[in-house]
Order: sequence, then C-alpha cells, then structure tokens
Amino acid sequence: MHQTFDAALELNLLHANQEGADHNREHFDTWKITCLNIMSSPGAGKTVLLEKTLAALQDKFNMAVIEGDMTTELDADRLRKYGVPVIPINTGRSCHLDSKMVAGGIHTLEHQYNPQDIDLVLVENVGNLVCPAEFEVGEHAKVALLSVTEGEDKPLKYPVMFQEADCLLITKTDLAPYLDIDIQQIADNVRQMNPNVTIIPLSAKTELGLKTWFNWLSDVVVNNRDRQTSGSLLTF
Amino acid sequence: MHQTFDAALELNLLHANQEGADHNREHFDTWKITCLNIMSSPGAGKTVLLEKTLAALQDKFNMAVIEGDMTTELDADRLRKYGVPVIPINTGRSCHLDSKMVAGGIHTLEHQYNPQDIDLVLVENVGNLVCPAEFEVGEHAKVALLSVTEGEDKPLKYPVMFQEADCLLITKTDLAPYLDIDIQQIADNVRQMNPNVTIIPLSAKTELGLKTWFNWLSDVVVNNRDRQTSGSLLTF
Repeated sequence: MHQTFDAALELNLLHANQEGADHNREHFDTWKITCLNIMSSPGAGKTVLLEKTLAALQDKFNMAVIEGDMTTELDADRLRKYGVPVIPINTGRSCHLDSKMVAGGIHTLEHQYNPQDIDLVLVENVGNLVCPAEFEVGEHAKVALLSVTEGEDKPLKYPVMFQEADCLLITKTDLAPYLDIDIQQIADNVRQMNPNVTIIPLSAKTELGLKTWFNWLSDVVVNNRDRQTSGSLLTF
Repeated sequence: MHQTFDAALELNLLHANQEGADHNREHFDTWKITCLNIMSSPGAGKTVLLEKTLAALQDKFNMAVIEGDMTTELDADRLRKYGVPVIPINTGRSCHLDSKMVAGGIHTLEHQYNPQDIDLVLVENVGNLVCPAEFEVGEHAKVALLSVTEGEDKPLKYPVMFQEADCLLITKTDLAPYLDIDIQQIADNVRQMNPNVTIIPLSAKTELGLKTWFNWLSDVVVNNRDRQTSGSLLTF
C-alpha cells in the first residue's frame, strides 16, 4: 500500500477492492468452487507447491489456476503441463493481484471452461510479502509461504501477511541444516500475532509436510462445499 | 504500484515523489554525501551486508544508515552496534520507502548529527522486489540483492528492479551447492535487460565477493564526491 496519497483515497481503494472481492466470492459460491489465495515473497516456492498439489490431488478434485505475475507466462507454462485450466494475469507494474484483475480471470473461467465442474481455484499471487495480504480477491482462505532462508524475524517485520493467513507453510526446510535458523522461532513469532493459524513445515524436495498440506487443503474444500451447499452465510 | 486508481493519479504520485527525490539529492550534494538505495526481497541479506560494510569501511568513510521497515526496529538495533547514526523509518502499511519519508530521515540527520562530516548514507529499503524500484528517494546509485534461493527466473518476472539497478549482488552463494541453481543464468537474465549493471556474486558467510563490493562502493563514493566538488550536474 502506498501512503503518499491521502487516507480517504486509500480507504476508497480498499473499500472498492473489498466489494469486488465479495462479488467474486459470490460467483465461486454459486459454482461451489473453493478459492485459495497463495502468497509469499518471490522464490519462496509457490509454483512448485502448485505443481505438487496439481499432481497429487488431480484424482480428488477438478482444479484450475489463476496465475498472477507482473510479466511473462513462465509460471503459467509450468502449470499448464498438468492439464488443468491455467488463466494468466499479467499485473504490469502492479505489485499484487486485486479483485478486479481476478474478476477478469473469473470471466475467462466462465466463458472458456465449465466452472460448475471445478472444485478448487488456486490463485497464485505476485511474489510480495506486503501488499497481497491487503487486497482480498474473493478467496475462502489465505495461504502464506515463508522460506527458511528468509529468517525468523520476517513475521515480526511484515506482520499483515502473517496476521491474515489461515495456513502458513514454512518452506525449503531441507536447507535448514545449512542455515542458522530456528524453525520453532518462526512458528512462535507467527502464533504471537495469529494464534489460530495452521503452520506446516514443508519441503518440496524431501516431500516433508506435503501430505499434511494436502489434508489441510482437502478439509478446506470439503468444509467449504458443505457451507455452500447448505446455503449458510457463515464463513469458516 | 497499485493500478486500481486512475493513471493520471498514478503519474501525479510518481511525479511528486521524483520532485522530492531530486530535492533530497540536492541536500546530499550540498553536504558531499553519497546516498545508496539498497533493495531486495525480504531476507535476501540487506542487513547483514550493511553490518559487513559498516565493519569493513569504518576507517575509510563516515557512514550513516536510514533504515526502512514496515514495523519494529530490529534491523536498526543490529546496525546501531557499529556506532554510526542509524535513523529508523517505520513505513506502517507502506511497502516501500518514498522520498517524503526519506526527507524526514534527512531532517533528523541534519538536526541530530553533523551531515557535513558524513561521506555515505546507506538507505535500507523495505523488503520488496517490486515497488521500491519505482520510488526514487534521492540516491546516487541503486543496489539490488537477489539471493540464489530465489531462482534464475526472478529478473525476468520482476524486471523493473533489475533494469534500474546500478549494482546487483547475487547473495547466499554458499547455498548454491544445495540448490538446483545456475548463477550464470541469473547474470545472463539480468544483463539481457541491463547490459551495464555491475554483477557481484557474494556470500556474507564465506566472504566471497565482499572485497569486490567494498571496492565498487568506494569507487562510487570517490567518483561522486569528485562530481559534487567540481559542481558538475552530470550524474555518473
């Protein structure tokens, strides 16, 4: 978020974004789709997490990806290999996805695919530990990744992302032996701000934590579908 | 940069920031200070680079630090141990420093220290690979850090930072043996957009590249002081 312009404008911007996000979520709820917003710094492992998830859960759920990147379709191309709808959004100079951009992605989903056949939309946000956490896109849950190479202090220094996350994946744990890092301290720093977050240490290389992640994700989809089917307005 | 508001407003914002940056640079030039803007993703090693630099160059230059963080003074406290002026700026929800915030830091420098005795001001920006590159703060040169753990593709996916950098430090090279990473490919991807950038592979742990970095930095300070002393309006 830029603070150079005035506070009222900032509030308007966030308010308009929130209205758009609520509207996007109504679309997802109509189609009984669960949407996850996946966020982290650049290079923390969002795309490889999606690769592993698409490969492991393809028999369980019909999935689609909305792939946010400032420029290029490098990540979208990696994910297209898994045979799922991948909708790229180039944000240009923007440092995060917003609900309007994702509405464009939903429009593509509606007109080029069959959204009523889809169970799960994974939104990969632009790599940025700050702004994506402030701009909801219509997701039912937020997933943050923090790599062990980033250091224990990051939850304290970039608090919004960690306060907002429903699930935190501490990634690249296979590198921990080569670093002066205390994974428990990362978890403690996050819990201090967000006592209810699910924290999963994970390595895409050794596959540590992947099954726990798949289980968490499956529970979110199933619980959300129950809510959507029962017509309850409560979010979980 | 957020794109939800209109393009004219965006231009105004950047224009006002640029005016402020030019004004800050005039202050630095008057005092014959060189200012560097140091930028990267969270956890790429900006603060440890400053620690090494303050320790190594303390007999050569009088230094000060303007330390940008969304919240906390964790990094400022680390750097105060080196006995130099450290001016913390908490950006709150802002994902980058802007020229107005740094003007506040310059005001503190002017009133609490003796700026005419200082040779080098190191500005540590908020950890973010996107927005800091768009908001000049009055620096004479931009330094970007990219950790080997972030992947070869990052210069292509986050181009502005790498187009703008005068010096790119490829950090944490000691971790390369444990990663599937090609450092030459990182360098090639950057040079493709920015042929004149100085690229230095570096490890704060093994000290690889540190001397090269100190030499580059010293040359910048000396060349810039020549320019300031001769009254030339040319930037190098």
